[in-house]
Amino acid sequence: MDVRGRRYTLTISCPDRPGIVAAVSGFIAGHKGWITEANHHSDHGSEWFFMRHEILAESLPFDLEGFRSRFASIASEFGMRWQVSDSAAKKRVVILVSRQDHCLYDLLYRWRSQDFEFDIPCVISNHDDLRGFVEWHGIPYFQVPVTAESKEAAFRRVMQLFEEHAGDTMVLARFMQILPAWMCEALPGRILNIHHSFLPSFAGARPYHQAYERGVKLIGATCHYVTALLDAGPIIEQDVIRIDHGDSVDDLVRYGRDIEKAVLARGLRYHVEDRVLLHGHKTIVFK
Amino acid sequence: MDVRGRRYTLTISCPDRPGIVAAVSGFIAGHKGWITEANHHSDHGSEWFFMRHEILAESLPFDLEGFRSRFASIASEFGMRWQVSDSAAKKRVVILVSRQDHCLYDLLYRWRSQDFEFDIPCVISNHDDLRGFVEWHGIPYFQVPVTAESKEAAFRRVMQLFEEHAGDTMVLARFMQILPAWMCEALPGRILNIHHSFLPSFAGARPYHQAYERGVKLIGATCHYVTALLDAGPIIEQDVIRIDHGDSVDDLVRYGRDIEKAVLARGLRYHVEDRVLLHGHKTIVFK
Amino acid sequence: MDVRGRRYTLTISCPDRPGIVAAVSGFIAGHKGWITEANHHSDHGSEWFFMRHEILAESLPFDLEGFRSRFASIASEFGMRWQVSDSAAKKRVVILVSRQDHCLYDLLYRWRSQDFEFDIPCVISNHDDLRGFVEWHGIPYFQVPVTAESKEAAFRRVMQLFEEHAGDTMVLARFMQILPAWMCEALPGRILNIHHSFLPSFAGARPYHQAYERGVKLIGATCHYVTALLDAGPIIEQDVIRIDHGDSVDDLVRYGRDIEKAVLARGLRYHVEDRVLLHGHKTIVFK
Amino acid sequence: MDVRGRRYTLTISCPDRPGIVAAVSGFIAGHKGWITEANHHSDHGSEWFFMRHEILAESLPFDLEGFRSRFASIASEFGMRWQVSDSAAKKRVVILVSRQDHCLYDLLYRWRSQDFEFDIPCVISNHDDLRGFVEWHGIPYFQVPVTAESKEAAFRRVMQLFEEHAGDTMVLARFMQILPAWMCEALPGRILNIHHSFLPSFAGARPYHQAYERGVKLIGATCHYVTALLDAGPIIEQDVIRIDHGDSVDDLVRYGRDIEKAVLARGLRYHVEDRVLLHGHKTIVFK
Repeated sequence: MDVRGRRYTLTISCPDRPGIVAAVSGFIAGHKGWITEANHHSDHGSEWFFMRHEILAESLPFDLEGFRSRFASIASEFGMRWQVSDSAAKKRVVILVSRQDHCLYDLLYRWRSQDFEFDIPCVISNHDDLRGFVEWHGIPYFQVPVTAESKEAAFRRVMQLFEEHAGDTMVLARFMQILPAWMCEALPGRILNIHHSFLPSFAGARPYHQAYERGVKLIGATCHYVTALLDAGPIIEQDVIRIDHGDSVDDLVRYGRDIEKAVLARGLRYHVEDRVLLHGHKTIVFK
Repeated sequence: MDVRGRRYTLTISCPDRPGIVAAVSGFIAGHKGWITEANHHSDHGSEWFFMRHEILAESLPFDLEGFRSRFASIASEFGMRWQVSDSAAKKRVVILVSRQDHCLYDLLYRWRSQDFEFDIPCVISNHDDLRGFVEWHGIPYFQVPVTAESKEAAFRRVMQLFEEHAGDTMVLARFMQILPAWMCEALPGRILNIHHSFLPSFAGARPYHQAYERGVKLIGATCHYVTALLDAGPIIEQDVIRIDHGDSVDDLVRYGRDIEKAVLARGLRYHVEDRVLLHGHKTIVFK
Repeated sequence: MDVRGRRYTLTISCPDRPGIVAAVSGFIAGHKGWITEANHHSDHGSEWFFMRHEILAESLPFDLEGFRSRFASIASEFGMRWQVSDSAAKKRVVILVSRQDHCLYDLLYRWRSQDFEFDIPCVISNHDDLRGFVEWHGIPYFQVPVTAESKEAAFRRVMQLFEEHAGDTMVLARFMQILPAWMCEALPGRILNIHHSFLPSFAGARPYHQAYERGVKLIGATCHYVTALLDAGPIIEQDVIRIDHGDSVDDLVRYGRDIEKAVLARGLRYHVEDRVLLHGHKTIVFK
Repeated sequence: MDVRGRRYTLTISCPDRPGIVAAVSGFIAGHKGWITEANHHSDHGSEWFFMRHEILAESLPFDLEGFRSRFASIASEFGMRWQVSDSAAKKRVVILVSRQDHCLYDLLYRWRSQDFEFDIPCVISNHDDLRGFVEWHGIPYFQVPVTAESKEAAFRRVMQLFEEHAGDTMVLARFMQILPAWMCEALPGRILNIHHSFLPSFAGARPYHQAYERGVKLIGATCHYVTALLDAGPIIEQDVIRIDHGDSVDDLVRYGRDIEKAVLARGLRYHVEDRVLLHGHKTIVFK
């Protein structure tokens, strides 16, 4: 249930030139479409243009397919990369976890309380620890053990489960395994990770230990798209909290959980609401 | 010098209905105008619409007067309150101070370093303390003493100076006097104040003492438009900082200065860049 | 399991004068006690002194009762209000909720993951909605309906349950009922509430609506001790988040949840770790 | 003028063991010293102990030399590294700048308004641009040009000026030159730098360009002690601000100034108030 009503969300990126906004808003207005939210961005270095519109579905005289077929000629004229989605069709988010459960717990709460709109068709883990909690929520849970030898087969199985459950988006909610390159490349801009540092500082293993050793005064977390290059994908959201000399590594781990789950939740919300547009290895986030 | 080039900034508010964006962007595109920044907002409660565009001046085939005369018919059709300004004509900001100088110091630095675009035609104070520093910057300084008996005459003199110096905007940079109602009403949406609390908490006198007494864990500052109702005008910007039990009232005053000057500077920047639109006793701020 | 080992926590407040620290640390050192954390505060206005020590239990040659009997003469000499607690005896926190479950969900997670040390002997609600989730965690759940007529009896029942479950602390985790004065007075400094505004702004009902109406640029939450005066008790912890003109009241409610649960969790942690000392209607919080 | 009165500040670090606090506070109490602020820290990994006391000077029956001679035996017994300073003898802070003036402007304001206690015996720059503003404040200004060939001689001259002006502390307030190793080593823990990134991210040249390229969502600044290893010295203070995809490199530079000057000012305040204790390549900061 969304009190704002059913909406179509149109996202566009294309080379910048005069007339884009006029063409798109003219199209919408020509069909009496009611715009509830609109955002633009011109990237001055690359001369590239980005745009997102939310339009009340009931204000338009056609459905999503009708939208797509009618909009195609404008898109073609401006060389647009574009998509339009329907808020009635919730994104299907498959969650991968290991043993750490704070992000999972938080996402299950947000799903259950409809904090924002998404479905969780299943949770996949290399361990069995979190089965009870997930199944209590009525969500299927699959254990896929990952060992050095079984790694390739394990990720084939994960991919199969993702496809069987018609996943749109995969979330690594503190999933302590590195995905194979083929998997990252199969789902570009569709796998989100939460890294427990303020990237690019402290990429790789044990970031809280690294932060403690360096003596930084703030620790952070980063939600980013996964690419084949470890911890180097486009950043969606980041945040930090203050620590001090009295905090041990255990304290950093403990306080860090709160920032990790908050950053992942915000990043995922931006993603499922089609607020994130990719621009090379960077993101445009229309909040 | 603005690396982004000379721009016209068009701000609009009107009753919401389909077709506004199409009409405005169609107008701009029809004249080959290049939009460098665009923001919209639909207020769902009041069904009112707000919009701001920055357009490269050199991309349009007419000047500001040409813009105004050509745009008038669209404005009339949609019942718009609107204005268009030219980045080449900097806002003229008259600053009023008493003895506290932290906000003044900060604004003079931002003016001198062109942190954002505005002019300071003069500084007015009820004391003479800050003359030397202001005049070192090459800015005229006027002392207008305010006493209980002279108050009316003093503010007539302030208004006269404001007009003689062709002021657009008046900033009360910790000016410890309450303006007369006639003055607030003569310059609606054009007088900015910095109040040293997170309003609506601790309105009125000695907010840091009030905050200390209540035992709050954060203190703040509020930049707002001045209305005849004390500390109740539309809020433009606010921020807070953390304090603790070890901080005395003197410490709050001292730490508060940093948040006051930061909040005033941001609020003033939004104002002079025409990013603030009034909506009753609230503001839309297109950052 | 606390990796830091079992500790005694000694908290003291008394009139300030030279020699307090020397007497207390001399006592601890005289028994070879190992101090793992120490904090002092001198309040200059009231000339009152506050102190908190954590001491490794195994470093001392006596138990908690031995500590108390030996320390009594020092306490008496300086006119101290004091207490000493044992980290092995976790605080027993009874949680009261209505239908909103975000704070409850968060506290259950922190309890289950041992984010900090406390027990939840039971959850009490005026509704039955959250029974399943609470009982899944193995925690008893009691429904005590509250109506205008039954209010007195209902709160007698709540108090009885609190006592039967040997509660130390009561937490109102978005419990939408006002406690009777006798209950507040029976448990001074032992009932924590989370109020969904940055107090003293927007006390009372529907703070997010009030915040929306006023047009503030930040919203907040306040964890405070409950007194007979509504929303006026000593503040333990506060925080804020930024909002903007695009956010509806529903958005404020939604984003506010995250700040409410974070502030309540921090406030409760400070409380159960004996980090909060009362000083009139204000608090000293030794973080 | 410090309303808190003249104070002695005693800072100590030594191997941790029971009895340190008792010995130190016993010493102070034995002479009727009035402690106005006290902080301790035990580092559990290294078993090292850190302590800072502020004592009202007038409450003690001896002067600083008397303090030193009487305290020496306790210091020796516990193997302490220690120092005691007198708030009446303000730290002498020599400021080095190039052409960027935001940090200088901010520090001159804090000095002039006695925001915290320090003196500026002189400002040294490799350019002449800022002479007028510095000299207006009544502070001597020395230009020492630095070229590839003259570098060694130039820094000898800087060191000579520092010594002639009896400098305690050197601040690189956006001084765009790398100090020679011999200079870093001659003044360990006495040279502060402000680096315009959240270290360890974006060390070295052009950090805002690096941040822009990486697409981070927050930018920061770091105040650290200078060592011979570039941008790797012990961190004193850090902070960040949020940016978004609409911000150009020029915007990052512009917004970054505010966080740079705030972080440098806080770091310098902690330093001149003897709140920073070195522990290997990390700092203890008693706020």
